[in-house]
Amino acid sequence: MTIPVYLRAVGTALPGSPVTNAMLAERFNMSTTWEQWVDTFIGTSTRYLSVDLATGEPRYSLADLGETAARRALDAAGTAPGDVDLMVMGTSSPDQLMPATVNVIADRLGINDVRAYQLQSGCTGAIQALDVARQMLLTGRHTTALVLGGDITAKHYDPTLDLNSLPPAQQVNGLLFGDGVGAVVLATEASRGAALIRHIHLRLTGLGRTPGQVVDWYGAAGDDSVVGIAVREEYKAIEESVPVMACDTLDQMLAHLDWKKIDLDYLLPPQLSGKMTARISERLDVPDAEEISCVEETGNTGNALPFLQLERLLPVAEPGDRAMVIAIESSKWIESGLALEMN
Amino acid sequence: MTIPVYLRAVGTALPGSPVTNAMLAERFNMSTTWEQWVDTFIGTSTRYLSVDLATGEPRYSLADLGETAARRALDAAGTAPGDVDLMVMGTSSPDQLMPATVNVIADRLGINDVRAYQLQSGCTGAIQALDVARQMLLTGRHTTALVLGGDITAKHYDPTLDLNSLPPAQQVNGLLFGDGVGAVVLATEASRGAALIRHIHLRLTGLGRTPGQVVDWYGAAGDDSVVGIAVREEYKAIEESVPVMACDTLDQMLAHLDWKKIDLDYLLPPQLSGKMTARISERLDVPDAEEISCVEETGNTGNALPFLQLERLLPVAEPGDRAMVIAIESSKWIESGLALEMN
Repeated sequence: MTIPVYLRAVGTALPGSPVTNAMLAERFNMSTTWEQWVDTFIGTSTRYLSVDLATGEPRYSLADLGETAARRALDAAGTAPGDVDLMVMGTSSPDQLMPATVNVIADRLGINDVRAYQLQSGCTGAIQALDVARQMLLTGRHTTALVLGGDITAKHYDPTLDLNSLPPAQQVNGLLFGDGVGAVVLATEASRGAALIRHIHLRLTGLGRTPGQVVDWYGAAGDDSVVGIAVREEYKAIEESVPVMACDTLDQMLAHLDWKKIDLDYLLPPQLSGKMTARISERLDVPDAEEISCVEETGNTGNALPFLQLERLLPVAEPGDRAMVIAIESSKWIESGLALEMN
Repeated sequence: MTIPVYLRAVGTALPGSPVTNAMLAERFNMSTTWEQWVDTFIGTSTRYLSVDLATGEPRYSLADLGETAARRALDAAGTAPGDVDLMVMGTSSPDQLMPATVNVIADRLGINDVRAYQLQSGCTGAIQALDVARQMLLTGRHTTALVLGGDITAKHYDPTLDLNSLPPAQQVNGLLFGDGVGAVVLATEASRGAALIRHIHLRLTGLGRTPGQVVDWYGAAGDDSVVGIAVREEYKAIEESVPVMACDTLDQMLAHLDWKKIDLDYLLPPQLSGKMTARISERLDVPDAEEISCVEETGNTGNALPFLQLERLLPVAEPGDRAMVIAIESSKWIESGLALEMN
């Protein structure tokens, strides 16, 4: 018999106040035409930034946000830090390469003598982290896992940037992404308002495909020649492939679970940008499910996204409700999905 | 009944030819006194570098070495890439933040439609990666895992460095570390010469402790103020704590397995440097076990180390032999151990 694994509670942390497109336009001397272009073609209205917009000074680290999100998740779950026997975190932007940020967060929470893992991951990282934690709960070795996912863009935020001089594709990078961390408590023991994890889908489909997203890092030796273009996106490939991959993921999940679209009460689709999410939701075509999205307000927060959506799901879902999370990572083209049934 | 998980074969890849202390001394204008100081106080004679010593030009990426190591492991195991249904990699030095290097290696090997995870990890990363893969084999969801671990120091190699101007603690960084990747095939099916994994120990002990190793990274925004000191080690703390943690790990592993020191045929101790390994081995005090170390020849290759040791173990161990791997990560003070029994 398979051990049931429950998602007991969610907590999230977003830094500071929302940064509007108008604030970005003013800060980087962009026109109101540009601002309207962002509204129309990107569809992301606000995001939260871990740096001071004016100076680029860091105000929050990934560990800062992770600690807050974790405390909120633990509080909401009624779980003491000392009851956590496993931590798994997904991020593409660790505070440092060493120590792994998950271990710093453990220290701050007073969690010790546990296994703690940090995945180097992108938009499917939250689902990957949940999958690793769930598998370890399924073997019976652990009972209570704290799972985190998040990203901060601070190290790529250049306050001296001349946004006007960049081609549109690179201007977009500064608009799409936002900072944030989410956390959940997974446990083998049920609780009121918890969601049973029915299935996790993960599938690398990168064979022979050029990466859709590349993010570089530099070490002590530096590399001045490439600084400034550390983040590169293949928007055309993303626009073409991600909706198809999202549909494939939904189909595979439904087939595995023997569910039909009509069985879904909530759909939590990929969150690349407001416009992309709208397009994907239309393609997914699950009209009877309520869509839960956050990207218009938070921007694309990478590893945090599904947690931000789950935080909006749990308070409204009723016992027996079924929800499907779909997240697609364009880095090397990874599909992911999470199927939940409310307890 | 627990599913048995076997380590079927090991493959490794070291870049180029060994770099001697004399070569480093000549390259960085250091004295012969310095060279003798390295021999005496560090005890690491050679290491392999992924960059050209003279120019700092990168010659091998982590994906290059990982691909080679993986092919060697798959060949040695008689496993076709298409039979791999899970990949897990540990590294502190991914080629890029996105895509994760494990996904690039999968592509090169022709592996697709699988789950692939990359851990952000240090000297316990090989054991962490083995643990994640083993847990996923234990749930029955997977049967054949390709597990990798490795690091390259290329992004921290500064050919313009004036080594003479640095304090000894920072000079040491360039001497201790070497580049390399190791890979193993884990499977639930036994094979001749395979090693049964009897136990994996992992324990974060960082509560209230300053990190012993910090490695920074920089993004598009750069950070000139800190470039050049991206890698920092607290050698005093490491020298004090690591031998104690290694002894604790051995004790906990033996207690869990109900083994005695006399039962161990092989000991694969931590590999920080030749001198440190010698000191730790003495403290571990398992006189009847044969020690298998590689650090004098390869340097500290981080996530690759246990694989380099296992590659030396498998050809010499006999059926029934018991071996214990111990690796300690000073980043945030993580204990790890792997107990094997030859099939």
